[in-house]
Amino acid sequence: MPAKVINFNDKFTQFSDHWSPRVIAEMNDYQFKLVKVEGEFVWHDHPDTDEVFIVIEGTLTIAFRDKEVTLRTGEMVVIPKGVEHKPMANEQCNIMIIEPRGVVNTGEIGSDLTALNDQWI
Amino acid sequence: MPAKVINFNDKFTQFSDHWSPRVIAEMNDYQFKLVKVEGEFVWHDHPDTDEVFIVIEGTLTIAFRDKEVTLRTGEMVVIPKGVEHKPMANEQCNIMIIEPRGVVNTGEIGSDLTALNDQWI
Repeated sequence: MPAKVINFNDKFTQFSDHWSPRVIAEMNDYQFKLVKVEGEFVWHDHPDTDEVFIVIEGTLTIAFRDKEVTLRTGEMVVIPKGVEHKPMANEQCNIMIIEPRGVVNTGEIGSDLTALNDQWI
Repeated sequence: MPAKVINFNDKFTQFSDHWSPRVIAEMNDYQFKLVKVEGEFVWHDHPDTDEVFIVIEGTLTIAFRDKEVTLRTGEMVVIPKGVEHKPMANEQCNIMIIEPRGVVNTGEIGSDLTALNDQWI
């Protein structure tokens, strides 16, 4: 029987690149992804789904067209579907993203930052 | 526009009872629930859905029929659908549960520990 304990900090030691999500778990058709972020991402949205960001360690700012929010360790936010957003971090920040399997990190906008999906660790 | 920052520790200060989930966010048809646990829960399963437990602070043991796993702060586990489990904690532990809206905490087993759904904080 599965049900393996997953330690976030252990998983974060297994990769070092930025903006490239690693899948650590699936629940039904949703994936839990760890990402190291630093600098500015691209403006994008996900037209078909909400998306959750949780800060595991560090400080993450998310820009919306009408405001910015800043999340610190132990904080989360739900990005409603279809809402343009741009994640940013002045210093490296470790985050977890929860969203349906198959969602592309840059939405429908092709970018140098578009990452492969289903990179499991 | 919503996208409100949610601080887990702030939310945990807003209630004190055990085994009674409080909803803090929704993503599509999934809910994020905070729960304070202490002692032993009841054996149960959720026949229609996986369920995620994340330990925000403390130590949580989950018994399965064939083994036990212990989660500490910063660890998570996916309980596969239909798998019987019994959460336990020797000392108070703060956890987050992620599962579809409408899932009852004790599954299909009526119990004194069956909690109301949709208690938002």
